[in-house]
Amino acid sequence: MAEKRTQKKEKRIEPALAGGFRDYLPTEAIARKKVLETVRSSFESFGFEPIETPAVEKTDVLTGSEEDSGKIIFNVKGSQEKKSDTSLRFDLTVPLARFVAANPNIPKPFKRYQIGNVWRGERPQAGRYREFMQADIDIVGSSSLDADAEIVTVIYETLKKLGLDDFVIKINNRKILNELPEFIGFDPKRLWSMLRIIDKKDKIGEAGVLEEVESEFDSSVARNMKIFLRAERSGAESMSGANEGAVELDTIRAKLDQMGLDMNRIVVDPSLVRGLGYYTGPVFETVLTALPEIGSIFSGGRYDNLVMRFTGQPIAAVGASLGVDRLFTAMQQLDMFEETTATANILIMNLSEGLYIDYMQFARKLRDENINVTFYAGDDKAFGAQLSYAVKKNIPFVLIYGDNERLAGVVNIKNLTSREQTEVEKEKLVEFFKG
Amino acid sequence: MAEKRTQKKEKRIEPALAGGFRDYLPTEAIARKKVLETVRSSFESFGFEPIETPAVEKTDVLTGSEEDSGKIIFNVKGSQEKKSDTSLRFDLTVPLARFVAANPNIPKPFKRYQIGNVWRGERPQAGRYREFMQADIDIVGSSSLDADAEIVTVIYETLKKLGLDDFVIKINNRKILNELPEFIGFDPKRLWSMLRIIDKKDKIGEAGVLEEVESEFDSSVARNMKIFLRAERSGAESMSGANEGAVELDTIRAKLDQMGLDMNRIVVDPSLVRGLGYYTGPVFETVLTALPEIGSIFSGGRYDNLVMRFTGQPIAAVGASLGVDRLFTAMQQLDMFEETTATANILIMNLSEGLYIDYMQFARKLRDENINVTFYAGDDKAFGAQLSYAVKKNIPFVLIYGDNERLAGVVNIKNLTSREQTEVEKEKLVEFFKG
Repeated sequence: MAEKRTQKKEKRIEPALAGGFRDYLPTEAIARKKVLETVRSSFESFGFEPIETPAVEKTDVLTGSEEDSGKIIFNVKGSQEKKSDTSLRFDLTVPLARFVAANPNIPKPFKRYQIGNVWRGERPQAGRYREFMQADIDIVGSSSLDADAEIVTVIYETLKKLGLDDFVIKINNRKILNELPEFIGFDPKRLWSMLRIIDKKDKIGEAGVLEEVESEFDSSVARNMKIFLRAERSGAESMSGANEGAVELDTIRAKLDQMGLDMNRIVVDPSLVRGLGYYTGPVFETVLTALPEIGSIFSGGRYDNLVMRFTGQPIAAVGASLGVDRLFTAMQQLDMFEETTATANILIMNLSEGLYIDYMQFARKLRDENINVTFYAGDDKAFGAQLSYAVKKNIPFVLIYGDNERLAGVVNIKNLTSREQTEVEKEKLVEFFKG
Repeated sequence: MAEKRTQKKEKRIEPALAGGFRDYLPTEAIARKKVLETVRSSFESFGFEPIETPAVEKTDVLTGSEEDSGKIIFNVKGSQEKKSDTSLRFDLTVPLARFVAANPNIPKPFKRYQIGNVWRGERPQAGRYREFMQADIDIVGSSSLDADAEIVTVIYETLKKLGLDDFVIKINNRKILNELPEFIGFDPKRLWSMLRIIDKKDKIGEAGVLEEVESEFDSSVARNMKIFLRAERSGAESMSGANEGAVELDTIRAKLDQMGLDMNRIVVDPSLVRGLGYYTGPVFETVLTALPEIGSIFSGGRYDNLVMRFTGQPIAAVGASLGVDRLFTAMQQLDMFEETTATANILIMNLSEGLYIDYMQFARKLRDENINVTFYAGDDKAFGAQLSYAVKKNIPFVLIYGDNERLAGVVNIKNLTSREQTEVEKEKLVEFFKG
């Protein structure tokens, strides 16, 4: 009673999501679950093993001394604490580096996958979310290009298993980009300014890049940049002679070819930078040819110096991250999901309180055969209400069992797709669905 | 180069977890994944459907006007924002209520499950974590006791499917507790103080409860409380006559009996309160008989007024929440997991760069048959190093293929459990594992 009074005094609260966050309804959540099962089994088929790390990490673990990543994080503070020294992870790679440093005895190469949400505290804007799911694969403790080739292979095979055919994996090498000052003639101290411009190529186009290079550097640098951007791999090599980065890309491509990948899908892109600061070698990015506006859905690269943040010693590592929400959006746009789905195959209608024991027995028998059954537990017991519930929920069958059926020793099964109704002997119920 | 200089200047950061958080290593993560698959399929067998809601919600959505829950939450703030009005969810029930209010057209009863982490900002202490995973089932929009009975049934069947046999589901009803002032004679305004004392019974025992009741109320109240606590259901009824709460418990028990549950596992416990303020009817709690110190692993109840916080109208709802981490700890203590496991069945040894194409073909053929294969992509190519890697990782088989094997058209398969080595014709490789 006292409780009720209190609740009446509460003001009504708007059931609003926080800005930049979203829900997934059952139809979407069921489809996402299937996508993740495929992703998981693809990763495991290559022997990657799962780990779980917490959503919240110490802020200095996440940001190191990179001020860039510090801008976009969410700080977390217990409501009784004075100040915050923890934050939500913004990717799964930095926590992996922390994990590897904290567990030095884990056998190497350590092939792990992790599927989980990450958070970025950017201002919310249309179509940009602040929580998103990543599915990461990484190989830690191997500097062999076999590892880089395997990461690209897993990207390729996972997308194929998901039913996506129309994609291109772009590859490049930070070692080539690191020599840009020498290739095209500018002060090495300005490398990062240059990479930031090139990184925008997908947004502003080649013309935009060249314009910015001309204004921030000069026209001779812009001219050389134009040649570089159009050169593809051979061009980079022609500039650099036997550049180590270009040789690595050749080796990886040869391995992918031997692995049996369609090499038309593997494209060297000299403008591929990948925003994050920690890459040191090959970098990868995957775009869906039909949906370039979605951006890269599966990207990564080699980052041999990240674990050093925690160990003082470099530990070689290479990996890639699948953007699950982007992937899901793309698959929705490509119409790859059934319109609606239910987890239950059959709704058992609740037509008489006295028949409850029979309903429960039907349910148990069917569930024992791995058939998902929902029993109507709602308040509106009218036949029509229950039928229309099944239709709205897209449940394929309803089981009708009232007093007439009980006397005849049968159940009626209505197929809600064909509208056909079949009378089935009680004993043959399981057979009807399994036969 | 510029990059390298920067990284050398970084001070080494301790790879420490934030206090109250933890990692799950591969062996644990693989076991947890299997547990969750069983839980999920059990929930789906009853027709529950998944949804996903964000980790971060508006703080007033989470706390409403209850100051109690406000104490234990984590506030979240974008690092560029001045103040925080968002927090990490502390359960999955309040976000469900927000979801239901925000999606009024979803067909009712809405049977949903959600598996996800929740966070509580309590001071970290030994064995207490600030992040934990919950797996919730709820039926929203039904006031029928069929719904309450189904929730208890799902608890029961899910634990059975996990292989747990030794458990008791305690049930009680808030409607009985709400009439305590009348039953045992004290001021109704002090109901919550009384419930807070009773709620501690598992920790302080009956004697402790009676002592506190005597000191905070008086000795006649304590005497009546003793009778109440020992009364079980019938006693409560004898006090109250035809108390609505007791009748509900009888009805639920009758339904569970008809459902075929072992009624020795369903126990009415008059001291069961369940801490949270939002329960309005039947409440449930599950303890493992062999591990009472783990506490309740699957609990819940009816909360017909929670959605009203957002809608102004009550919407009937009942549900329960499985504590995945507690469950996992219990299953570990009961020795229910294999000691170590790998995702890969076979390690393909990397014995010669020239045989890479063959290795990749073996891998592809095996993966096409759903056999998980890891190719050794490490730096230490010595035979012994690769073999010992497979042993450490608990991979059951290694595939040995060097120049001798190539010339003979065979592969050698070593079973690392039996230490047996078998020579297999290349063409019969898949057959060896599938046959």
